[in-house]
Amino acid sequence: MRLLGKDEVASITLGAAVLATGGGGDPYLGSIMAIDAIEEYGPVKLVSVDEIGDDDLFVTVAMVGAPTVIMEKLPSGEEAVIACRAIEKNLGRKITGIYPIEAGGVNSLLPIAAAARLGLPIADMDGMGRAFPELQMTTFHLHGINFSPAAVVDVHSNCNLVLAKDAVWSERFARVVCAQMGGAAVVAACPLTGAQARSASIRDILTLEQRLGEAMTASRGDGQKVISRIREILGARMLFHGKVLEVDRRTEGAFNRGLARAEGLSSYKGKSFEVQFQNEYLVARVDDEVCCVTPDLITLLDDETGMPVLTERLRYGARIRAIGIPAHRHWRSPKGLEVAGPRYFRYEIEFTPVEELVTE
Amino acid sequence: MRLLGKDEVASITLGAAVLATGGGGDPYLGSIMAIDAIEEYGPVKLVSVDEIGDDDLFVTVAMVGAPTVIMEKLPSGEEAVIACRAIEKNLGRKITGIYPIEAGGVNSLLPIAAAARLGLPIADMDGMGRAFPELQMTTFHLHGINFSPAAVVDVHSNCNLVLAKDAVWSERFARVVCAQMGGAAVVAACPLTGAQARSASIRDILTLEQRLGEAMTASRGDGQKVISRIREILGARMLFHGKVLEVDRRTEGAFNRGLARAEGLSSYKGKSFEVQFQNEYLVARVDDEVCCVTPDLITLLDDETGMPVLTERLRYGARIRAIGIPAHRHWRSPKGLEVAGPRYFRYEIEFTPVEELVTE
Repeated sequence: MRLLGKDEVASITLGAAVLATGGGGDPYLGSIMAIDAIEEYGPVKLVSVDEIGDDDLFVTVAMVGAPTVIMEKLPSGEEAVIACRAIEKNLGRKITGIYPIEAGGVNSLLPIAAAARLGLPIADMDGMGRAFPELQMTTFHLHGINFSPAAVVDVHSNCNLVLAKDAVWSERFARVVCAQMGGAAVVAACPLTGAQARSASIRDILTLEQRLGEAMTASRGDGQKVISRIREILGARMLFHGKVLEVDRRTEGAFNRGLARAEGLSSYKGKSFEVQFQNEYLVARVDDEVCCVTPDLITLLDDETGMPVLTERLRYGARIRAIGIPAHRHWRSPKGLEVAGPRYFRYEIEFTPVEELVTE
Repeated sequence: MRLLGKDEVASITLGAAVLATGGGGDPYLGSIMAIDAIEEYGPVKLVSVDEIGDDDLFVTVAMVGAPTVIMEKLPSGEEAVIACRAIEKNLGRKITGIYPIEAGGVNSLLPIAAAARLGLPIADMDGMGRAFPELQMTTFHLHGINFSPAAVVDVHSNCNLVLAKDAVWSERFARVVCAQMGGAAVVAACPLTGAQARSASIRDILTLEQRLGEAMTASRGDGQKVISRIREILGARMLFHGKVLEVDRRTEGAFNRGLARAEGLSSYKGKSFEVQFQNEYLVARVDDEVCCVTPDLITLLDDETGMPVLTERLRYGARIRAIGIPAHRHWRSPKGLEVAGPRYFRYEIEFTPVEELVTE
């Protein structure tokens, strides 16, 4: 156990944005939520999965919806409390801890804010090891753990308690409810015991995010050094170096979808680059050849600062470096690829590990 | 208190279809559900609203969705039990009775089936006095009573517990959840005490339906006599007599929408007829002049048998008589017209009582 204060939150914010692969919402807004809550309620206890007891009940707190909408509808904090109370009422048990469902600007930080407000510890784990657009894309689902009960709460305190038979159904219901709530909502869901957390989670993710963030801060001012430290920590491959020519972006239901194209600034990684996204970057191509594909992580970094560039911040003229990060082994399993591989997203591509696509 | 057995159900089925104004689902399927349940669990106690105690907790059980889909996805009966149990768990209290939300082939009969299965009485009341397409269109909503908690359950036992701040929000969430459930779902909702039932319901509706049905059966074989008895009991005006020329019908989300046109068979009620519907008939015109409009009831009766014709059974060549029935006074109030008047459905028409539009 250790405490997360404002400094730790600042580092986690930076590191989570790298793993968010272009999605996950604005890191700055996420950090404001967490820092405000820590200032008001004090630092949050971070526990490792090994410290979670088998009588414990940890739930995730997250925002669902399109990142562009989430940025305009920041939660007050009360939504998470209402959602957790609805879960407790349904299960007839007290929640004893919180965990993040994924890495991202909002969903790494909102659970810290909720934990502070609720006076509960947060677990050093998540269910994706990155960001993904849909709620069944978790290692918990890969292990047969339901996402329900899931309480979806909006700014008006409307609550929908989803009690669906599996995570795929939970996602469907939560998604349409979220769209009715204006495109963004807070969810508390996926209760886990210690045993479930140990067998099914991706461990130590907040610590990894913090370590990444600290390395990025230590190299601040030198973009190339920041990028090189990120690559070193995550075993990432360089995919492309170029200038953004075109971004086609649309909000469909509770998703941001689109694609971006870039031209090479140096010839060593190809002349043209294209990346498709649904909240997160999912498929990257250099000179029309796939160079990295979901569930492996595609992250675009600002060439000057080394900082990650979210899909909704991509602009014409931006100079970027794209990197590819190997996904957790859970995601490269047959079930992992079925749930979050390229074919799930309707890309007619076989998954090939980024280490095989890009040999350096 | 009296008992509803198979004979009473058969009469209620006929009468409810008249008040269903073209919607409400297939009366035949509804009666099968209720009769099967009565055969298995015995007759159902019908109590008047004056017999409901202030410690009682009556909930409605209903199907939501497009009638065309409801007909293909009849509930097993278990959905209502799951939905009622979810309400009880949320309120921490036992349900002591059931009531129908509206008049219609499915929603007058399904609550009888659910009451039989649950061993509970059914209240002689409803919240519409007719059928309407949306869940906030109840006299309970007019009296400020929430529709939540509302448990929406599908054939896979997926449950969504809607805890929304008012009936309009409840409708929004239940509707999109229902669409995800394939377009039809069973809902248990709108818990009422005796005092609420007495102040806000439309009383004695099952008894009225039964009386209508008995009169229709007694005149069976003589369509004109059936129609004349219906008009007498309900104070209905004759709107049109003609032959259906054209029906334009589409399923949009969880609604059936469309319009039908007919030509006159005798000149005394005009040459042309048009009726627009959204699950229920909402606006009728004769020779391009409005002759009856929601919340007043528009019902089409088969010219030969006098039996009501549902929107989804309307066909080219059908010979029909259209009647207009004055709505309950709750619906003709300013709040009633705001909730279910023509402007709510985006018709640029002022509401005028059918007695003023058609003077005989």
